[in-house]
Amino acid sequence: METSGELTFALAQINTCVGDLDGNAAKILGYSRTAAEKNADIVLFPEMAVTGYPIEDLAFRNTFRKAADTAVGNIARSLKEEGLGQLYVVLGTVGTDSSGKPRNRLLVIHNGTVEAQYDKHFLPNYGVFDEFRIFAPGQDDLILTVKGRRIGFAICEDIWQDGGTVEKLAHKGIDILATINGSPYEEGKSHTRVDLCRRRARQVNAPVIYLNQVGGQDDLVFDGASFIVSRDGSVIGRSRQFAEDLGLWTYTAPESVSGPGSGADTGMQTAPVMDPDEEVYTACVTGLHDYMEKNRFTGVVLGLSGGIDSALVAAMAADACGGENVWGLSMPSMYSSDGSKDDAADLASRIHAHYEIQPIEPLFKVFERQTGVDGVAAENLQARIRGVLVMAYSNSKGLLALATGNKSELACGYSTIYGDAVGGYAPIKDILKTKVWQLARWRNNAARCRGEVPPIPENSITKAPSAELRPGQKDSDSLPEYALLDKVLEAYIEKVHGRADLLDDGFDAQTVNTVMRLVDQAEWKRRQYPLGPKVTALAFGRDRRLPVTSAFREDRPRG
Amino acid sequence: METSGELTFALAQINTCVGDLDGNAAKILGYSRTAAEKNADIVLFPEMAVTGYPIEDLAFRNTFRKAADTAVGNIARSLKEEGLGQLYVVLGTVGTDSSGKPRNRLLVIHNGTVEAQYDKHFLPNYGVFDEFRIFAPGQDDLILTVKGRRIGFAICEDIWQDGGTVEKLAHKGIDILATINGSPYEEGKSHTRVDLCRRRARQVNAPVIYLNQVGGQDDLVFDGASFIVSRDGSVIGRSRQFAEDLGLWTYTAPESVSGPGSGADTGMQTAPVMDPDEEVYTACVTGLHDYMEKNRFTGVVLGLSGGIDSALVAAMAADACGGENVWGLSMPSMYSSDGSKDDAADLASRIHAHYEIQPIEPLFKVFERQTGVDGVAAENLQARIRGVLVMAYSNSKGLLALATGNKSELACGYSTIYGDAVGGYAPIKDILKTKVWQLARWRNNAARCRGEVPPIPENSITKAPSAELRPGQKDSDSLPEYALLDKVLEAYIEKVHGRADLLDDGFDAQTVNTVMRLVDQAEWKRRQYPLGPKVTALAFGRDRRLPVTSAFREDRPRG
Repeated sequence: METSGELTFALAQINTCVGDLDGNAAKILGYSRTAAEKNADIVLFPEMAVTGYPIEDLAFRNTFRKAADTAVGNIARSLKEEGLGQLYVVLGTVGTDSSGKPRNRLLVIHNGTVEAQYDKHFLPNYGVFDEFRIFAPGQDDLILTVKGRRIGFAICEDIWQDGGTVEKLAHKGIDILATINGSPYEEGKSHTRVDLCRRRARQVNAPVIYLNQVGGQDDLVFDGASFIVSRDGSVIGRSRQFAEDLGLWTYTAPESVSGPGSGADTGMQTAPVMDPDEEVYTACVTGLHDYMEKNRFTGVVLGLSGGIDSALVAAMAADACGGENVWGLSMPSMYSSDGSKDDAADLASRIHAHYEIQPIEPLFKVFERQTGVDGVAAENLQARIRGVLVMAYSNSKGLLALATGNKSELACGYSTIYGDAVGGYAPIKDILKTKVWQLARWRNNAARCRGEVPPIPENSITKAPSAELRPGQKDSDSLPEYALLDKVLEAYIEKVHGRADLLDDGFDAQTVNTVMRLVDQAEWKRRQYPLGPKVTALAFGRDRRLPVTSAFREDRPRG
Repeated sequence: METSGELTFALAQINTCVGDLDGNAAKILGYSRTAAEKNADIVLFPEMAVTGYPIEDLAFRNTFRKAADTAVGNIARSLKEEGLGQLYVVLGTVGTDSSGKPRNRLLVIHNGTVEAQYDKHFLPNYGVFDEFRIFAPGQDDLILTVKGRRIGFAICEDIWQDGGTVEKLAHKGIDILATINGSPYEEGKSHTRVDLCRRRARQVNAPVIYLNQVGGQDDLVFDGASFIVSRDGSVIGRSRQFAEDLGLWTYTAPESVSGPGSGADTGMQTAPVMDPDEEVYTACVTGLHDYMEKNRFTGVVLGLSGGIDSALVAAMAADACGGENVWGLSMPSMYSSDGSKDDAADLASRIHAHYEIQPIEPLFKVFERQTGVDGVAAENLQARIRGVLVMAYSNSKGLLALATGNKSELACGYSTIYGDAVGGYAPIKDILKTKVWQLARWRNNAARCRGEVPPIPENSITKAPSAELRPGQKDSDSLPEYALLDKVLEAYIEKVHGRADLLDDGFDAQTVNTVMRLVDQAEWKRRQYPLGPKVTALAFGRDRRLPVTSAFREDRPRG
């Protein structure tokens, strides 16, 4: 085997911050130095690593694009000055084309200059993506020859669509396909990505490097989990999930080099894969942690009702920023049970959070006397007084207010606008209620395995859920049982099944009618009075974007 | 002149409601009957008239597309059964292509069937538009021959982009270019549309019909103002602004018919054009009126501070739904001046609104005692107590809560989240403060001209603006004078000028730094704790979509 064919890649799976050009550049330089120390020939950074991703409308600002160009120039100059000019640094940034339009661009830095560039061809604008609106598509492919090996490049969506760049590369022949990505976490997406890259490896007849970014950014969480598949489709290396990593992989040319082909691997470790509950829990904590850090919050405040939702959110918050930075407010009403108050106090003590009691009854009485409200308006009033209290703590102490609503109740409108929906971040907005219980159990078990105190009181997990806004109230008075509800929600929201489809799925007509009515009305109300937190940790499923004013109602049977 | 060349078009400028397939179909049938009575050969309806526009993600729902197909079938059958089968009915709807993807489609109904179809070629996804995400583009053009005349069709964006459909039609030769549109109102857009159609008329060497929809839909207002330009570019007919209309225009073949050409016009009236302030005021009232009607609200509630913003919004609300359906709440604090309370009462009496006084001091005292908040947190607390009161009225009486913030203060973050920002609809969210005063003066003058009582107290217009959240507070303590502020905001937000550009514009460095810092921080806060009302009346300028987490700050001079 000839050593001249050897080529060492470093996969720099980093956590960038949108707009933090100086911070991102410093991180890129740091990882490049380490890569060079480890004798890498080429170091790969994620899609738009210089600017962070996604930059949304920042792309349109000339001054921002110029500043990104300056940052790239500084990186190239610094590397050369430090004697690292021979290292090939492949990174993503925003570019500008000849007609002044922004491009999603990959650059190859070498010997102190930008030696080559490639612009993303396919621009996703489905789901959480909005790129076609922002960027102009690239037309050309790029094959870079290093030590006699032909490396083809692609950016994220370019490998998800047939045709385009990969087809061209397959036609021209390459030795390695290197892809840089900004691919948000979704449950089960790891498998999809690997299957996709296996297909592309066969197509280009070469190994495929899949380098992803990691960390939370706004309402997205990137899981990292970069990997390499060989030409024959086996995974020959995998980076960690939800953490920065620097993977090293040496490409060795096959013995009979009659054309481009896959080599054997050396050096790249294979990190273990988390189990599904750990993965989702970690995604939530990563999203919250990075949201706080990137927005310079050091603490959070949330209402602790004694129920499972606020307990899980508090446990996640303690994992994200330490229990000593969590303020838990118990805000009992005249309808709060002693059990609820005890459970809230128990939770706070388990996670070592600050715990303060702010009864809402005295405040409610004054409002009630002055306005004379009753019924649902009075229930909402209680929730809104709690919202005012949470925000008073947020304003006074500079804390991030957390909303504790889960996906099932938000989907069904089982929450109060400007009340319990108040908050700047909603860690479990994308978690269905049955999953909330599952994650709570998983988190307690993980503590037990480590010999720690389980953070969540068993009582909060086992008792029947209630909003406690009137005597004896239970969620099941207004909603189907969660085990059933969550199945219908998944079919109606994620799979976009209509009424007929849901009946075909085997759900009974009454449940289908109830759930569709609740969801449609909640969507309508949410658009009318948007809920506090727009931001959520995960991209399990995009919120449906429907018009506010829509007389189309398929929730009721015709006639 | 040969009469066989005569062809009468009816321009049905209608107000549809998204998703109201039955209601829209009934309206289409009604206007078709009238068009037939007036001897029209062809009646044109707006883009997506069957479904309403924009339908956003409803397009993805199979059951919705099927229901739209059924509605079209019913229209065709009804027309034939009523003996109107000979009328050509041209309308927009959602279609499905052979690969199951939604299309933005134009249909020609004739003799009880769909005789021809055309799919929109250019799908805008800039500004308020998101069509490329939703629809697949059409490839083919359509020329329909009626009475020997060749009519080419285009849908909205198809005439705004060069190339595509219009180029094909110009090449093939047509006698009339008929365009159906869903074009939202923007200040000054009428002129842009006419200029555009003049250019297209020259390009296709034929008259151009521009048929637009009218009315408010969610956060958009469509102004109607349909028109026709002759081949030589003169406007030969114009429909009313902000009202349904049925324009009739007879195309007459030119005397020397050596090829396709423009004919003389007969029959189409030319409605007068509103002056700029009337236009903007009417857009706001139309947006609010239709938002209420389409969402079945009959009344509104808002806080009346005695200031100009709430006064203007109340006047608009009274124009939209009648003063007797407006609930004005005076919610004085310990810092509210007697003058403010008098102005609020005066306003309510002028517009015949319900007027109730809900002092916030007793409520504030209880919160203050219990939580011990002070400073800005105490100011926010006052605003949030008002928010709770407004929502209590909204919930108790089923009223739409109106937020009264203007664009200048929202852009600068001069408002309290969950406080004065509470509301389901924000009628003047897109109106800069200097324009607020201008519209108030215009509205009062209009009343005087009609011999009516001006709705807005002179005092509310002339006094210095203040939030009255602490003693002696004035807006000018925190913000540059509005005359200057609004100019900077326009350059920074609408024109996307960066810091260097703003200095080149002639603004002084201190003002530029202040405004950029305020706007950037407000955007950041707004994304963190989204403001109540997402919905706004007008599409004067799209809100910038920036990431929440962005360390990119160009608001401060470097170094």
